[in-house]
Amino acid sequence: MWLNQAWLSQTLSNRVFHIELIGVSEDAVSVRLRSEIAQWLHLPLVTSAPQSTQPTVTLVCDVRSCLDEEGFSIDVAQDGNVCIESSSTRGLLYGFYAWLRDVGLKAEHSHTEIPDQKLRMINQWDQADGSVERGYAGESIFYGRWGSNVHAEFFDFPERSAADVFRGDISRIRDYARFLASVGINAISLNNVNVRSYATRFIVEPYLQRIAEITRIFSSFGIKSFLSVNFAAPKVIGNLTTSDPCDKKVIAWWKKVVDHIYEVIPDFGGFVVKADSEGEPGPYQYGRDHADGANLFARVLAPHHGIVIWRAFVYNSHTDWRDRSVDRARAAFDNFAALDGKFDDNAVLQVKFGPIDFQTREPLSPLLARMQKTNLIMEFEITAEYLGHQIDVNYVLPQWIGMASWQSPEGSIRERLPRVARQPQFTGFAAISNVGMDENWTGNTLAQANLYGYARFCWSKSLTSQEIAHEWVGLSFENSTTATKQVIESILNRSNKAYEDYCAPLGVGFMVNRNGHYGPGPDDYEFDRWGTYHYADRDGVGVDRTSATGTGFVGQYPSLYSSLEKPETTPDELLLFFHHVNYTYRLHSGETVIQHIYNTHFAGVEEVEKFVDEWNSIQGDIEPLDWENVAERLRRQKANAINWRDQINTFFWRLSGIADEQGRSLYS
Amino acid sequence: MWLNQAWLSQTLSNRVFHIELIGVSEDAVSVRLRSEIAQWLHLPLVTSAPQSTQPTVTLVCDVRSCLDEEGFSIDVAQDGNVCIESSSTRGLLYGFYAWLRDVGLKAEHSHTEIPDQKLRMINQWDQADGSVERGYAGESIFYGRWGSNVHAEFFDFPERSAADVFRGDISRIRDYARFLASVGINAISLNNVNVRSYATRFIVEPYLQRIAEITRIFSSFGIKSFLSVNFAAPKVIGNLTTSDPCDKKVIAWWKKVVDHIYEVIPDFGGFVVKADSEGEPGPYQYGRDHADGANLFARVLAPHHGIVIWRAFVYNSHTDWRDRSVDRARAAFDNFAALDGKFDDNAVLQVKFGPIDFQTREPLSPLLARMQKTNLIMEFEITAEYLGHQIDVNYVLPQWIGMASWQSPEGSIRERLPRVARQPQFTGFAAISNVGMDENWTGNTLAQANLYGYARFCWSKSLTSQEIAHEWVGLSFENSTTATKQVIESILNRSNKAYEDYCAPLGVGFMVNRNGHYGPGPDDYEFDRWGTYHYADRDGVGVDRTSATGTGFVGQYPSLYSSLEKPETTPDELLLFFHHVNYTYRLHSGETVIQHIYNTHFAGVEEVEKFVDEWNSIQGDIEPLDWENVAERLRRQKANAINWRDQINTFFWRLSGIADEQGRSLYS
Repeated sequence: MWLNQAWLSQTLSNRVFHIELIGVSEDAVSVRLRSEIAQWLHLPLVTSAPQSTQPTVTLVCDVRSCLDEEGFSIDVAQDGNVCIESSSTRGLLYGFYAWLRDVGLKAEHSHTEIPDQKLRMINQWDQADGSVERGYAGESIFYGRWGSNVHAEFFDFPERSAADVFRGDISRIRDYARFLASVGINAISLNNVNVRSYATRFIVEPYLQRIAEITRIFSSFGIKSFLSVNFAAPKVIGNLTTSDPCDKKVIAWWKKVVDHIYEVIPDFGGFVVKADSEGEPGPYQYGRDHADGANLFARVLAPHHGIVIWRAFVYNSHTDWRDRSVDRARAAFDNFAALDGKFDDNAVLQVKFGPIDFQTREPLSPLLARMQKTNLIMEFEITAEYLGHQIDVNYVLPQWIGMASWQSPEGSIRERLPRVARQPQFTGFAAISNVGMDENWTGNTLAQANLYGYARFCWSKSLTSQEIAHEWVGLSFENSTTATKQVIESILNRSNKAYEDYCAPLGVGFMVNRNGHYGPGPDDYEFDRWGTYHYADRDGVGVDRTSATGTGFVGQYPSLYSSLEKPETTPDELLLFFHHVNYTYRLHSGETVIQHIYNTHFAGVEEVEKFVDEWNSIQGDIEPLDWENVAERLRRQKANAINWRDQINTFFWRLSGIADEQGRSLYS
Repeated sequence: MWLNQAWLSQTLSNRVFHIELIGVSEDAVSVRLRSEIAQWLHLPLVTSAPQSTQPTVTLVCDVRSCLDEEGFSIDVAQDGNVCIESSSTRGLLYGFYAWLRDVGLKAEHSHTEIPDQKLRMINQWDQADGSVERGYAGESIFYGRWGSNVHAEFFDFPERSAADVFRGDISRIRDYARFLASVGINAISLNNVNVRSYATRFIVEPYLQRIAEITRIFSSFGIKSFLSVNFAAPKVIGNLTTSDPCDKKVIAWWKKVVDHIYEVIPDFGGFVVKADSEGEPGPYQYGRDHADGANLFARVLAPHHGIVIWRAFVYNSHTDWRDRSVDRARAAFDNFAALDGKFDDNAVLQVKFGPIDFQTREPLSPLLARMQKTNLIMEFEITAEYLGHQIDVNYVLPQWIGMASWQSPEGSIRERLPRVARQPQFTGFAAISNVGMDENWTGNTLAQANLYGYARFCWSKSLTSQEIAHEWVGLSFENSTTATKQVIESILNRSNKAYEDYCAPLGVGFMVNRNGHYGPGPDDYEFDRWGTYHYADRDGVGVDRTSATGTGFVGQYPSLYSSLEKPETTPDELLLFFHHVNYTYRLHSGETVIQHIYNTHFAGVEEVEKFVDEWNSIQGDIEPLDWENVAERLRRQKANAINWRDQINTFFWRLSGIADEQGRSLYS
């Protein structure tokens, strides 16, 4: 991925390194920092201040520094000597990697940085059978058989009866931890939020010992480890007759489990819980609310400074499509708004950025704009579930930056999170990882940019998506020409729009194939139980979510958003999310809805065809394996884009009977 | 099922039985006949002509009888003595069961019967892992673990590594053979036509020995056993580099395999082959045609009097929905018509009754009406793949009898088969079984009527579907009142129409859920690769298969069918199979197409609601387990029918914008 050990080692071979700890004890992170310099990069690390004339890189960890615990400063003197300073070993590690990044980008300069979001978390959806739910880059790097990478889809795994569910590939986990730490990730949950099979036992022996081995690697890179837990564990593995969060025996059982975890993993982060969602167990089945559920865990974790992260992804997944009074978009707010202020100080509510499920275009989740006294995490999905399965190039930072920039009465959403929190240090971002055992980690090599980009987006609120792409390309293709890098950057920067263009139009969402969420299926979810409908008929399309005539979802927002109540004051790209309009309705762009559908779907394919040509033009100037990987994926993306274009266009042409103004061919 | 051993044993306890073989040797079938009387029914079987005053049943097998080999006569004298006569032991067995049936129906009478179709075959789609492809009554009775009946769906089976794939439940296989023989079935293929995994090796040792154990049971009931073979076996298990049907080594390999099979199973029937279909290997990949493929097997089987049954279910399963020039309905004729006369005398072409795939309504396959010099088998599907999964009650004999009654220049199709054959004894019917390890064999107890009915339909060309239902109900519910039996018969007789009413309308087919073929999915196949499209748009629906403006499929029929070229001379129930018409097109019934859709979908649900009420009315007058089984299935059928009604009605309401004339509620 983006840290090229060989290139860095060679480029920096003339430097001498020196670490000073002032008022700070040696710890796992400082030892790791020494190891990164001496063992990983094979660079000279001296124990006393160097006297040589070689350029020196001095890393100072000084408890008296007035920098934030995670911040650092880099000072590049005119003589080439570099001083990196922080008040903590972790900050120093971040500073070291930041400086490596400057070196990689051939842009060494002095700067001081403090991360923007406090929690910068990765969620693994890895499962004990070695599969990764919604994973598109091979098997889990944590679980599964040693050396295996056969099962490409999370639902095609054979039953495993072996007790050892751990893959044991320590060096790959170490590499992953380095990648994450190098861009400032400071928390990771190690298993899927749907906690099944052996994963339910990860919190107890003998599994816990093996989990601890993994956490020690992450700890040395400054990353706290979390586990997803099964709410029903007291019944499933504890031999209790209930999992009621208010039951004394249940509380005692969890306390015992947690106390033991902290004996084995003293810096354990805490738990992630998906409850009462899509068939998972939860407090509702005991007549309790989600604050009862979350606080159960918060209280047993608090003595150890652990936290519980409670997912707000709760909705009725057995919706009747005939019942227009139910709106899945309302669910998170309906379930959680009344609980504002009832969650303990060390409980955190993790909320998906939009009200549905990571579609190509969604509005902000109202919960993120309205909760006033709750620690919040905003959730993103790096793994490309609805966004092309890491087959289609889709650099998604433009969307994420846009989502975090939605305004609220307390400022942009990313600014708001710490302002309304009970404990600002327990707020931030989380995202589902996109890595697996594939050689290049992410299926499509270009999908690495989303993992990199997510972390940089957590760290900095000012970086644009273009700047992040520029960094990633610069660090990943050091040996290529500037022209080549510009080609790659350009493809990345246009890819999110191209993908949105050929998928479901104007924010309507869920026209995706039911079998796995790749490719089109215009009506695949229309009569299904998941609450995701577009209501297309011969006259028009879209979901009326207004307060006046629709589901009332618009009313969940602060009054700031009252413009969403009317189609004419709703942004084009979200029109069909909020309103049901006729095909002849005219957008702000001047196009009718139907013509917009045709135009974007033709444009999306044309853009992918350009990507293919542009990628062909750089063959020879990047590593052949990388080139072939992306070239092969682009061929599949083109086929996919054509499928989307033709099925969506035909679907709406059959419904509307309105021909393309430009006379392009529509299949009837 | 329909032979109630306890009831028969008691009813017949005052009879004395005597078997005479005249010019005929004792064989496995005659031994079985003795065993059926003495061991199975525990009735007195005497070795010399009885002198007692008890009513005597004399079974005479006389080589001089002028009856057809499979025929029999039953003579019921006024004194109560019965004489059953045949020229073969098998005919005598059929006569014995026919008489048992008369007894069961309290209608002993004299009659002479000769079966109509020569081959009366059952195809098992059972697989070596214990699953049954498209099976809805539990696991395979032949394969799988002893005592297991856990896996309900054929695609959810775990990998099995054990070498013993045979279930070994001999008594269940014997019961099954008895049921089949009792209604005249004389051939069975023992494994799925998609031959995978261990099943490829069934033709060789050590599997063959275990197969032979099964065939001996069927032989004793007069049933010839066949195996489905993998066309690629020479490569897969023979270590050859090719499976080319014209390659000498391939021919020699098959000859050796076949010669050995007949050493082990001297009365082996032959092979069933699915080739070049839905991903299966076949002669096309070697540039050969299907006659080359079939004759390869015919020639190595001929010395042993075996036959090869070659399936005509060959079509392009990677169709592009955009390409209107391809019509899957044309495929069988396009692939096989030119080969008429090229198949050997002991090769048989097995043709599905309709051109697509066992939908609720299809026209006849043109191949069955046009081939002039080929042995043909007409194929039916008893297992309810598209017909309700043996959850919904669907007594399908009305459809089958209708299909076999389609006319041709050589008479009705069932009359035509022997008339155009090279060898009339190698023609007949075949059907995929619907049994499994479920306690009641068929999932829904009422689905037994289709297995029973299929066999009776093979045997007799004059029985109506009502008469067959009457027989099955009479034999299956001996202890119920006449009123109760009439209720059950009435439900059966109305069930096929009810099911058709709530499914895809007017012969258009394939509006079924893509996930497993149960429940609605109006657009699920519309943009898929299977060649099954309805082309519904805002103006109309249906497939133009005319010669004038459509795919030309109508032209594959004899001129007898030229009326299908025009909508106004096409039967209503097949209108959308042959024509694309507007929703306002008026049917012969006087209804418009759209109003017909609404009417039938409301009517279908109402009919199922009546079934529920009627079934409730007979509680207490049939076995509680049978009653509960059907009651539970009817509850699920009602939910399914409502889903169909609402999704189909909404789909067409959204497209057409035409309201129901009767103002019933349509969901928008």
